[in-house]
Amino acid sequence: MKRHLISAADLTRDDAVLILDTAEEMARIADRPIKKLPTLRGRTIVNLFFEDSTRTRISFEAAAKRLSADVINFSAKGSSVSKGESLKDTALTLEAMGADAVVIRHGDSGAPHRLATSGWIGGSVVNAGDGTHEHPTQALLDAFTLRRRLVGQEGADLAGKRVTVVGDILHSRVARSDVRLLSTLGAHVTLVAPPTLVPYGVESWPCEVSYDLDAVLDTSDAVMMLRVQRERMNAAFFPTEREYARRYGLDGERMARMPEHAVVMHPGPMNRGMEITAQVADSPRCTAVEQVTNGVSIRMAVMYLLLGGSSPSGPSPSTTQEPGMQHRAGSSEENN
Amino acid sequence: MKRHLISAADLTRDDAVLILDTAEEMARIADRPIKKLPTLRGRTIVNLFFEDSTRTRISFEAAAKRLSADVINFSAKGSSVSKGESLKDTALTLEAMGADAVVIRHGDSGAPHRLATSGWIGGSVVNAGDGTHEHPTQALLDAFTLRRRLVGQEGADLAGKRVTVVGDILHSRVARSDVRLLSTLGAHVTLVAPPTLVPYGVESWPCEVSYDLDAVLDTSDAVMMLRVQRERMNAAFFPTEREYARRYGLDGERMARMPEHAVVMHPGPMNRGMEITAQVADSPRCTAVEQVTNGVSIRMAVMYLLLGGSSPSGPSPSTTQEPGMQHRAGSSEENN
Amino acid sequence: MKRHLISAADLTRDDAVLILDTAEEMARIADRPIKKLPTLRGRTIVNLFFEDSTRTRISFEAAAKRLSADVINFSAKGSSVSKGESLKDTALTLEAMGADAVVIRHGDSGAPHRLATSGWIGGSVVNAGDGTHEHPTQALLDAFTLRRRLVGQEGADLAGKRVTVVGDILHSRVARSDVRLLSTLGAHVTLVAPPTLVPYGVESWPCEVSYDLDAVLDTSDAVMMLRVQRERMNAAFFPTEREYARRYGLDGERMARMPEHAVVMHPGPMNRGMEITAQVADSPRCTAVEQVTNGVSIRMAVMYLLLGGSSPSGPSPSTTQEPGMQHRAGSSEENN
Repeated sequence: MKRHLISAADLTRDDAVLILDTAEEMARIADRPIKKLPTLRGRTIVNLFFEDSTRTRISFEAAAKRLSADVINFSAKGSSVSKGESLKDTALTLEAMGADAVVIRHGDSGAPHRLATSGWIGGSVVNAGDGTHEHPTQALLDAFTLRRRLVGQEGADLAGKRVTVVGDILHSRVARSDVRLLSTLGAHVTLVAPPTLVPYGVESWPCEVSYDLDAVLDTSDAVMMLRVQRERMNAAFFPTEREYARRYGLDGERMARMPEHAVVMHPGPMNRGMEITAQVADSPRCTAVEQVTNGVSIRMAVMYLLLGGSSPSGPSPSTTQEPGMQHRAGSSEENN
Repeated sequence: MKRHLISAADLTRDDAVLILDTAEEMARIADRPIKKLPTLRGRTIVNLFFEDSTRTRISFEAAAKRLSADVINFSAKGSSVSKGESLKDTALTLEAMGADAVVIRHGDSGAPHRLATSGWIGGSVVNAGDGTHEHPTQALLDAFTLRRRLVGQEGADLAGKRVTVVGDILHSRVARSDVRLLSTLGAHVTLVAPPTLVPYGVESWPCEVSYDLDAVLDTSDAVMMLRVQRERMNAAFFPTEREYARRYGLDGERMARMPEHAVVMHPGPMNRGMEITAQVADSPRCTAVEQVTNGVSIRMAVMYLLLGGSSPSGPSPSTTQEPGMQHRAGSSEENN
Repeated sequence: MKRHLISAADLTRDDAVLILDTAEEMARIADRPIKKLPTLRGRTIVNLFFEDSTRTRISFEAAAKRLSADVINFSAKGSSVSKGESLKDTALTLEAMGADAVVIRHGDSGAPHRLATSGWIGGSVVNAGDGTHEHPTQALLDAFTLRRRLVGQEGADLAGKRVTVVGDILHSRVARSDVRLLSTLGAHVTLVAPPTLVPYGVESWPCEVSYDLDAVLDTSDAVMMLRVQRERMNAAFFPTEREYARRYGLDGERMARMPEHAVVMHPGPMNRGMEITAQVADSPRCTAVEQVTNGVSIRMAVMYLLLGGSSPSGPSPSTTQEPGMQHRAGSSEENN
């Protein structure tokens, strides 16, 4: 694996499977009396959020704390950034303070890439969502959820599974990351959207495009509903709310036409009554809540692998009693 | 004890005495060289604050950290909540992330109750103040302060003590919680307020009501002054500031008419010159600062009892060298 | 050393050298596999910030966490302070909650002094910048950076070194602290500023004043560029931007006239193109990034010395295997 996680395109099939398998180990930690590993003790992880996203920030924070890292939250609002400090100066500052990883959320597509490739940062950079570009840990948790629900086997990928992604593809970083990662893992992805919400150049993406949700329901193993951004709904390119819900919303009737084993996914928070009805949202086939749980396991796995240093050929968390213990060698703190 | 703490009405006399006794143990931790217990190591406590209240948030945060819990602060401002996420979705998210307890502050009376009874949350819910409804940990710290000052004996309740609560009862969640808890503990509570600031239905509360502060001073073991909310003072139902201070404010002259052993309480922050004069606020009879200290001990006790799991008949923190050690059994982290 | 750190004037030469030497020890921690000391375990440090300053807050937070302290961030915005709580009540609250140290940033010159001398606080007070008064940890990290670059020897001071401080001296707390501390350490300080940005009474400061940057460049061992506060630049007393950059900005040509060993310092964040050109900012002679790193070491040293309790004659972190271990005596937590 590379040192950073900026895009789902950074991950080979084997990288992605390793992350999913490691996340399975992390999920087991949650069943222990003490849900904590000492792996990243003494490491500092900075959550550098230029956009508000409490859900994502909390998920990364919980994951880092379960690995015993020190977490520092840096909300760019009201910070020196608003005094005109550049991303470069912010990066150099965090690097100089000894940040081992920077989890960055930014409104500009490409900001995490710039951070990772600039040489400003010696540690790892994890993209927690940038503009309309990517949100790779979301795609990983989606893949993890799909594998658990549809395959149920560690070491496996998603070969042959049919995943339909529905909604505002044009503005969705989640859709971009999912298309890349799920296809890398062998899934067939179909995007369904109003014509005005399909991006230019989608022909080169490893997926199919449809404008008709009903046509693909009965062959989908999973239907992933994207969140409608209410602030975009009055734009000229957007259908009316009513039209959108009628043509692209998932209700109980449509869910009934999906194969029996098929699941409904949603990155949350859900707009009940808009892209998804309450009946579907609260159905056991909807994995929205599991996805949140899985998000913590995935982010633990990503930070473990990026910072903890075990390589695919090295010991995995399951082969030793104590994952990451090798990083503690030479530490005298605990022994005194 | 129940799994949640939503209202002072949730607590029997024995529950309440157990919390006060446990808080005494917790207060002793503060005298140790390392003011920390490992009891809640690996547990995650979320402070979910929909209203600003730095004092209360910090008190819960300090308490949780002294018990070695991981604390995540979630201020609802600027979060997905402002993007229209419902309390339900927020709750499901926190649950899915593995929150062991949610400490909630909310402007709507009943929000913590909804959270606790909805089935959304598997962990414990602690009400840190909801609308004009309740603030049970405030009542517990008041009871703890009263017992220390007036009784001085562990295992005891407040039987026969006379407590006068003065101010804007109508809007005060502190008053509601205090009336319930202190009467459960055997105290006689008298409310004193301008007629317009006494709630409908107060006749059914376990307390007396008076409109004349001077009439009850010499029989009070404690006089608890409520904070005047300045933003309410211009409302039609509110006396003028001058009138309020003259009739319901506590000054040195009034304090002198209280019995010698009687104390003055205030939940803070105090409006010096309004409901209390500086002379009274800074007098050794005023327990406002002790109440803050006691707040940390009480919140440690509440979280210890709700999450740490020792039952009234089980080992208390004082019977073992290390409170909460039983929860660490099976943990391999520290032994490796 | 005193219990608080409010002003650079609080420090004798020996105090300051002790802090610099301790910071050298702390800097070595960063090279360990686990960059953490147990010294302040169980201590609570509150960052009480009345002004936004993410950089300074993060530096103190990282320092405290590396010493294993519990850190509570208290941003005064949206807190009870905005409901009219006085500094006194805030202080009493933090004290009552058991804060062992309060790191305060305040817009009013003198607020930290008031906090420290009021008797409200039993723990230590550290000034993290107050109005136009002082910012002593910034001066300490500047001194540390100077000693490393120009002297390179522990135990030493800055005797005979010539430091030029350039910019808006009038409004700069950094300049005030630097003049005091660097002169205490034996350096010769020269201030360079437009006449309107030199404070009244500067004649009594232990430094010289010049209005001509070019006249002092070739005798400076270090040139410290102050940040121009953009919000002040339109004021009547301020030169135009162009005039300022031309007369007081540091560009490559000016840097070339400095002695070969001389360094350029900047407290950050830099206004590239204003007080410093990008060429100078990114030159290896510019220590801005080192200063940030050194800031964490200095703040660790300050909190270690104020809270950890080792006196100048006592054991320093280097004489025992585990700095601060003496504070853990009697703790049973880790041994069980």
